[in-house]
Amino acid sequence: MNFGVIGYGYWGPNVVRNLSSLEGSHVVAIAEVNPTARVRAQKAYPGVNVTADTSAVISSAEIDAIAVVTPVWTHYELVKAALENGKHVFVEKPFTSNAAQGEELINLARQKNLTIMVDHTFLFTGAVKKISQLLDEGSLGNLYYYDSTRVNLGLFQHDINVLWDLAPHDLSIMDYLIKASPEAIVATGERHLNGCEDVAYMTLYFPGQVIAHINVNWLSPVKVRTTLIGGEKRMLVWNDLEADEKVKVYDKGVNITSREGVYEVLVHYRTGDMWAPQLEQVEALHKELSYFVDCVSKGQEPFNDGCAGLRVVKMLEAATESLSKRGSLVYL
Amino acid sequence: MNFGVIGYGYWGPNVVRNLSSLEGSHVVAIAEVNPTARVRAQKAYPGVNVTADTSAVISSAEIDAIAVVTPVWTHYELVKAALENGKHVFVEKPFTSNAAQGEELINLARQKNLTIMVDHTFLFTGAVKKISQLLDEGSLGNLYYYDSTRVNLGLFQHDINVLWDLAPHDLSIMDYLIKASPEAIVATGERHLNGCEDVAYMTLYFPGQVIAHINVNWLSPVKVRTTLIGGEKRMLVWNDLEADEKVKVYDKGVNITSREGVYEVLVHYRTGDMWAPQLEQVEALHKELSYFVDCVSKGQEPFNDGCAGLRVVKMLEAATESLSKRGSLVYL
Amino acid sequence: MNFGVIGYGYWGPNVVRNLSSLEGSHVVAIAEVNPTARVRAQKAYPGVNVTADTSAVISSAEIDAIAVVTPVWTHYELVKAALENGKHVFVEKPFTSNAAQGEELINLARQKNLTIMVDHTFLFTGAVKKISQLLDEGSLGNLYYYDSTRVNLGLFQHDINVLWDLAPHDLSIMDYLIKASPEAIVATGERHLNGCEDVAYMTLYFPGQVIAHINVNWLSPVKVRTTLIGGEKRMLVWNDLEADEKVKVYDKGVNITSREGVYEVLVHYRTGDMWAPQLEQVEALHKELSYFVDCVSKGQEPFNDGCAGLRVVKMLEAATESLSKRGSLVYL
Amino acid sequence: MNFGVIGYGYWGPNVVRNLSSLEGSHVVAIAEVNPTARVRAQKAYPGVNVTADTSAVISSAEIDAIAVVTPVWTHYELVKAALENGKHVFVEKPFTSNAAQGEELINLARQKNLTIMVDHTFLFTGAVKKISQLLDEGSLGNLYYYDSTRVNLGLFQHDINVLWDLAPHDLSIMDYLIKASPEAIVATGERHLNGCEDVAYMTLYFPGQVIAHINVNWLSPVKVRTTLIGGEKRMLVWNDLEADEKVKVYDKGVNITSREGVYEVLVHYRTGDMWAPQLEQVEALHKELSYFVDCVSKGQEPFNDGCAGLRVVKMLEAATESLSKRGSLVYL
Repeated sequence: MNFGVIGYGYWGPNVVRNLSSLEGSHVVAIAEVNPTARVRAQKAYPGVNVTADTSAVISSAEIDAIAVVTPVWTHYELVKAALENGKHVFVEKPFTSNAAQGEELINLARQKNLTIMVDHTFLFTGAVKKISQLLDEGSLGNLYYYDSTRVNLGLFQHDINVLWDLAPHDLSIMDYLIKASPEAIVATGERHLNGCEDVAYMTLYFPGQVIAHINVNWLSPVKVRTTLIGGEKRMLVWNDLEADEKVKVYDKGVNITSREGVYEVLVHYRTGDMWAPQLEQVEALHKELSYFVDCVSKGQEPFNDGCAGLRVVKMLEAATESLSKRGSLVYL
Repeated sequence: MNFGVIGYGYWGPNVVRNLSSLEGSHVVAIAEVNPTARVRAQKAYPGVNVTADTSAVISSAEIDAIAVVTPVWTHYELVKAALENGKHVFVEKPFTSNAAQGEELINLARQKNLTIMVDHTFLFTGAVKKISQLLDEGSLGNLYYYDSTRVNLGLFQHDINVLWDLAPHDLSIMDYLIKASPEAIVATGERHLNGCEDVAYMTLYFPGQVIAHINVNWLSPVKVRTTLIGGEKRMLVWNDLEADEKVKVYDKGVNITSREGVYEVLVHYRTGDMWAPQLEQVEALHKELSYFVDCVSKGQEPFNDGCAGLRVVKMLEAATESLSKRGSLVYL
Repeated sequence: MNFGVIGYGYWGPNVVRNLSSLEGSHVVAIAEVNPTARVRAQKAYPGVNVTADTSAVISSAEIDAIAVVTPVWTHYELVKAALENGKHVFVEKPFTSNAAQGEELINLARQKNLTIMVDHTFLFTGAVKKISQLLDEGSLGNLYYYDSTRVNLGLFQHDINVLWDLAPHDLSIMDYLIKASPEAIVATGERHLNGCEDVAYMTLYFPGQVIAHINVNWLSPVKVRTTLIGGEKRMLVWNDLEADEKVKVYDKGVNITSREGVYEVLVHYRTGDMWAPQLEQVEALHKELSYFVDCVSKGQEPFNDGCAGLRVVKMLEAATESLSKRGSLVYL
Repeated sequence: MNFGVIGYGYWGPNVVRNLSSLEGSHVVAIAEVNPTARVRAQKAYPGVNVTADTSAVISSAEIDAIAVVTPVWTHYELVKAALENGKHVFVEKPFTSNAAQGEELINLARQKNLTIMVDHTFLFTGAVKKISQLLDEGSLGNLYYYDSTRVNLGLFQHDINVLWDLAPHDLSIMDYLIKASPEAIVATGERHLNGCEDVAYMTLYFPGQVIAHINVNWLSPVKVRTTLIGGEKRMLVWNDLEADEKVKVYDKGVNITSREGVYEVLVHYRTGDMWAPQLEQVEALHKELSYFVDCVSKGQEPFNDGCAGLRVVKMLEAATESLSKRGSLVYL
């Protein structure tokens, strides 16, 4: 499968590197508007056509699939052009700037019988796979809450706020793990520097008393990537910055007993062993791109398709609406 | 100064122990409804009058001050009775169950010329004192955000939710550090077990684009007590569970430069040394009770007086209203 | 059982507190040469006879057992006097200043049919019990090494060096876990301040290629209490400063395959899950003193008897000899 | 400057990558005996001559300098051949298998007026530079001890033991920081798998009561890279596995006061702030190779020259002798 890659900024080099090393895929062309980035790309890949002409790449007859690795506000036009030129598309998250764009692209791909995959990379990590397995097999029992903290110093964006920048990771993971759509969303936040919110918080109410929360921040002196997941039977902590033992499962829980009097403790805790399962170590992006090639070859719909991307965009839209009112309950 | 202590449950023993070792204070009586707790109290303090008769303690002529260390729903009646009997009052946080109660008690104390101190213990820790000093001397520059995570497994309460249980710590600290009242509050959360919210999140909008956030949770497998504070010039992390180095100050910051083009980075980061100042090691409750004795002796109003307690209760009331609507902006 | 406690310095208060709360034991008298410490003792225990007269306590007719909680150079005389007065003895580690003293005391206790227990407190912690169980049931496979780091700033002793101060903990644990005596010992170290070694290292060669190492240091800016234990099948890390998860068991190992060529890797690693078993939370000293009362009552020899204490003293003597030659192999 | 690189195993690719990106250096040829590694090298560097013929590379007229990135037992022959062919040499640590080889090579280089640099990479890290600066400017006061732990699971070597594999890092750092040669060395250790010691400990006695200790282990379930350095005025911890804050300087110390009585504490501790200086972030190997090119161009002797490499080999030889006697004091 021959690939054209649009965008060689922060993430593009990773996409090109993985596509290059992948069995069955071949990077034919890289389009990039920034001249310095073009020089870097050409030096690293002397045999690849590196160009400023995006349209030429998208319409190239020898290319089967386009990877769109550009800012979100460019996705709609680029993906649309790629689909119209009969190319399969691998596109960065978030999928589009709004839901209407996403729906149009999904319909266009269906008409043309083409595949869209949205780059929800975390779904291909050993950590998320293990957590998914634990939830599916009932190890945690009924889910109570999902609470993610994703903060660091920078990288500031000027076209999107911190929610659109960092929360798509969490939203795509939640969407994958919880297997339900939130009923309502509340988002709060503040802007301090360039007119975009740099600190934001998001609560999602899911059916069945499941609550999710996301804390994102571009102004934290320390980097944190920690998610707590609480279930009826067990609870876990996923610290993505740990070299080993990223996921720790705690055999802890709570039981309710009948109320006997005002001064009695009504809730009993159960504490047991902690267990850090070994996780698959393969680079997530490598697995994801390999899955993309596979899905396209077999004409199979990926689970992280345009619809998955659209669900995330709808949550971001609801959050944006809530945030604009400084926090108000927005139903989806 | 002779003390009567009402309540010998979880925190009461600490109050009694500190009052006993304090120069100039003397515990005369302990009132406690639970017989088992009375046995523990009497064994530990053979010379103290341990009784089930709360009224007798409150009205005892030899007692100068009452420490109220009971659940919040009992505070109003107990503090009122103590004031009416001419006793100074040291009362657990949160001050009262609602603002009206708090206002009435403050007025009563003023009429009687008596002192109320609300037990905002954290304000007397070496960590909060150091952070306060750093903010006051301008080390952090203008404040951007205050973000606290205070989660653990239990202890479940049946009469109050997790916000009323854990957030008063953060609210009293914020009130002390930020020196301004929030304009509006948004609170979200969920209940899973006994009808009280066991997971909750609270955003506070302060004047001047200062935002604060509190994450409290009774269902976390791990205990976390971490606060991030971001300022224009410096940022800090306060991890109260660290044995040493609880407060780390980061010489990191962000500068804005003029916008030059869509692909240019507009925000520049500054990173420098990290510094963990040595903190005072004295037990906070000991310092606070010593300050109480001092304030009463000198007829001086404590900074953690009834008004400070009332400000926290008002924030909790606003949060409760927001929470009941699953998150909505409530102005104070 | 009535106890006399000799010594109310750093550790004595813990012994008294635990004996006081223990079913079936009663502290009758405390002997202490330091007047300030006597005041502290009397204030905390108004009903106990606190005295400077050690002999009177040791010879008191109402006392059944003596707890010797004094510096090591006083143990021999005090324990001897206690035994001669027909008292059972609970004595601080290290047992005695040299092996000859220890042997004499063991013989005296046997003649008098009295019990000696040496305070190897760590053997009663949940961590050591769990590690012992893992070793005994073969979870780790054949033992390869035991490597302990026990460093902190102070507390400097003026009568013994850092080996005699800190290493007895490790030596008693090793003696308990490995169930074999070392064949030879090498110790190195240096003195910088008061004529006693403040930094020291000790290697112990056990039969069967088991090697042990102890790193002790009074001049470390940070406190470390970490032990690595490596076995053929599994390895573990015991970090005694962790609040939870003190013991982590790693399902990791090494297999040897036949040598095939100079550039081939000959050793294969196996990596699997990590597991932190829940540990018993009871205070170790409480369990140990309860066991002492039990052993004396039943006329049963404790496993941490004088002989166990003597084995540790013999290792310390060998280490001292090696250290005096700046490290030389000393056979036991 | 044109380079030939001998060896493309574990470390070779890093050397080639850095030489390729370095201003003023050019990799002309790579010699490697392993065919699989040759394929990898050729794929990554299509324009470079990748060959099995080491001699051809060493004698190539277009090559100015040879980088020897092969196992230690091959260094002597390869460096000798390179020097005889008039090439400057950059050679992996440890420099040679014994001191005699090292001396011969140093003399040969002097005769030929050629540069030898031994790859003591750590000396070019931000951490070691900062520690060196702190020591040189007297921030730590007189040095008391240097204590390094460098353990992990693997990588097992079959031709050298764990001391020769891991300790050269520490020995070269010590040599650089302490600026004195050890007077005597004691090494202990044990072999469990393939005939080479996989666990080893090394004590070095330096003049002026400075003691150093190295703990190296191929059988640890966790990776540790921690060095404690204690001085009269301050102490520091260097944890090389920390992403940020690798070096923490503690304003802690010890003062001696006159002895007044047996029960008096004679040593007083001073504790103050902790400080984590910002460290230079440039890749150490990049800086080192740039320095090599610079030294050769200017005819300047590098500080990590053959003599520095020889000093490390002499320490390893002494340690080997001590280890063969299971620990005995070996004077240098």
